Amino acid sequence: MRHDGPVTSQTPLSALSADDLAARLTTVRADYDALKERGLKLDLTRGKPGSDQLDLSNGLLDLPSGLKDAAGTDVRNYGGLDGLAELRAIFADLLGVDAAAVVCGGNSSLTMMHQVLTALLLKGGPDSPRPWSQEPVVKFVCPVPGYDRHFTMLAELGIEMVTVPMNADGPDVEAVRALVADDPSVKGMWIVPTYANPTGAVCSTEVAAELMAMPTAAPDFRILWDNAYAVHHLTGEEIKSADALGLASASGHPNRPIVFASTSKITFAGAGVAALAASPENRAWYLERLGFASIGPDKVNHLRHIEFFGDADGVRAHMRRHRDLIAPKFDAVEEALSGRLSGLDIAEWTVPSGGYFVNLDVLDGTASRVVALAKEAGIALTPAGSAFPHGDDPRDRNIRLAPTFPVLAEVEAAMAGVAVCVELAALESLARD
Amino acid sequence: MRHDGPVTSQTPLSALSADDLAARLTTVRADYDALKERGLKLDLTRGKPGSDQLDLSNGLLDLPSGLKDAAGTDVRNYGGLDGLAELRAIFADLLGVDAAAVVCGGNSSLTMMHQVLTALLLKGGPDSPRPWSQEPVVKFVCPVPGYDRHFTMLAELGIEMVTVPMNADGPDVEAVRALVADDPSVKGMWIVPTYANPTGAVCSTEVAAELMAMPTAAPDFRILWDNAYAVHHLTGEEIKSADALGLASASGHPNRPIVFASTSKITFAGAGVAALAASPENRAWYLERLGFASIGPDKVNHLRHIEFFGDADGVRAHMRRHRDLIAPKFDAVEEALSGRLSGLDIAEWTVPSGGYFVNLDVLDGTASRVVALAKEAGIALTPAGSAFPHGDDPRDRNIRLAPTFPVLAEVEAAMAGVAVCVELAALESLARD
Repeated sequence: MRHDGPVTSQTPLSALSADDLAARLTTVRADYDALKERGLKLDLTRGKPGSDQLDLSNGLLDLPSGLKDAAGTDVRNYGGLDGLAELRAIFADLLGVDAAAVVCGGNSSLTMMHQVLTALLLKGGPDSPRPWSQEPVVKFVCPVPGYDRHFTMLAELGIEMVTVPMNADGPDVEAVRALVADDPSVKGMWIVPTYANPTGAVCSTEVAAELMAMPTAAPDFRILWDNAYAVHHLTGEEIKSADALGLASASGHPNRPIVFASTSKITFAGAGVAALAASPENRAWYLERLGFASIGPDKVNHLRHIEFFGDADGVRAHMRRHRDLIAPKFDAVEEALSGRLSGLDIAEWTVPSGGYFVNLDVLDGTASRVVALAKEAGIALTPAGSAFPHGDDPRDRNIRLAPTFPVLAEVEAAMAGVAVCVELAALESLARD
Repeated sequence: MRHDGPVTSQTPLSALSADDLAARLTTVRADYDALKERGLKLDLTRGKPGSDQLDLSNGLLDLPSGLKDAAGTDVRNYGGLDGLAELRAIFADLLGVDAAAVVCGGNSSLTMMHQVLTALLLKGGPDSPRPWSQEPVVKFVCPVPGYDRHFTMLAELGIEMVTVPMNADGPDVEAVRALVADDPSVKGMWIVPTYANPTGAVCSTEVAAELMAMPTAAPDFRILWDNAYAVHHLTGEEIKSADALGLASASGHPNRPIVFASTSKITFAGAGVAALAASPENRAWYLERLGFASIGPDKVNHLRHIEFFGDADGVRAHMRRHRDLIAPKFDAVEEALSGRLSGLDIAEWTVPSGGYFVNLDVLDGTASRVVALAKEAGIALTPAGSAFPHGDDPRDRNIRLAPTFPVLAEVEAAMAGVAVCVELAALESLARD
């Protein structure tokens, strides 16, 4: 899944003589100057759908055609805190959970995660000795690299972060075990189980089973299972997510995981529907909290989505249309990086089979420089380190690439430029050593 | 505004002899038995729009016709935390505030109030010495009778409630002053300034000015100004709300009020748009907090509302169509109560010029009995005491009537029944004395 090997005849830069290194630096500086000359204005910063992807869902704009759901509820009025049943059934099918476990909400799963965390802080969960805000310290395990908004949310809420490596099959279980076994202040962890942001890793059923079964010192340990990319396949192999709720229940910790998902990158990123799935006890706890803050979600938008998709297979077919649009952009990233950097031994990157990102690890200590060089050449990249808590990448090597929003020609141009910046920063670093 | 006077020739029940009381009790018991015989199934519990009101907004279902706002933003994608500018302008006009003060959000102003309170608890506001959750006690001033969901939200969040009377011109200012002047644990108060839930009272500019100017021991005192019914007039006299933000700013307490509103009872109750307006410092504080929980509101629904209304005058014209539908229901409440109860000196009730409720005060100690009698006769009323913190009406006399949701004939039938129950409960009570 990672590319860094000598698939071409290029010599690793670290093997170059001082003279060869100086010569190559001169050449690549010229390439970079030529890049700047082009006056690009390109953006690879955020995981946003492109407008061609959004167009796939324009049928929503004329829906709903009816005013009631199958149960006869007028969707225009108040009520129905857990969302329309037919939509819950669709999410249940996609997530591989029981429909009775699901709550459908507003337009943002991030908002649901924040609701869960603030409720844990102010009230505590079903298994909490007290509200988390009354604990001296609360810590979360954060697999890295990870999703920046997960980390900034914890920082905002005063929750400390301890990191573990994100491996190709999920979080490093032994590292997680060591953190949670004896320290009751470690109250939870994040995970993006399928096509993780940013590495594209997929948490295996084995890893998931261990996370759900492992002993934790905290009786109310929570795994926030952000399955944002559950159906966002980039290849014909449509990987099925591990069954977090089932595994947790089987190992006697039914309340450990809370599952989140949304249609943000399925229909409209700003106007989709989010969902949560959890054990009966967690679900009742969440709905009780939610009932003090809401009279119900936007059921018109629920019905709009029910009519648009019909069922879960409608969603799956729709996701294949997304794949047709964005897989070529991911191919362009791979081609640009391989074309310039293979064999140089200064970078490795992922070739994800789903999700929205490519994870690029450059020569240690050069990620910030690459981002700065790219910016000077008119290519916006996510700030170096953003996939780490507090933006602190200890090796300054990680860059998250998001190729979905620009059109294909822009991805090609931007990534050719990024490859130049990666090489230039590496050469500068090696020349200094 | 209140009716209880001897506008008919009926004798006050308290003036009846024991024999006359017994005779009348027999008669009214027969009326009640006849009522039960009818096997009604009517509901006056919640302030929900009727389906004919919802039909007024069915034009929304075919909107938006475009994909972009005036600034060229694609409303289908992420972003725009404070909502679309044209919608903010409409709310600003309706609320009499500067457009720069407004944030447009999701489908619920209740959710925005909850966000503000949880943020004050977990982080503190711009003027807070520390997060409210770190104070030994936090108290809120609650004008009573008031909105049950305001009170249950505070109870959920562990905020204590101290009550003041809600007068015809707003909260009793002297009572509020006495609570807030010396006690720094009194951190805020609720108010529904226009057509209050449930009394219909309108807070005068004089009262509003005093609330904004009064000294408070807490440096971060907040008035949550829930202007849910700002444009919900029931008569041709379209009362303008006091300018909370302007008055607060003029008196040197710009951060004191936070204004809330929504289109829940303007377009679709479950699928409208909510808004918040506040000082520059409060607004920035709110948006910073919100940014950790959301990437932006449903802008498609914002654009849908912009296209539907055009401007604030479009909203005002729309509200007159609502008035045409619901004013007759309020008239029916008045007629049923006056017809049976005027002159008996056992009840008083409001004749609101706006909003969604009629406040009915029955003979002390009989409200619970009235609700129970009504229930037995198939008429659902809001539980007695629900307009008081913890559901505790010390005089057990207050009942909130919500006549908008049933059709007119049902309101007539239900209210005729309620009047019987009010008289029967009073007679039972007087006969015991």
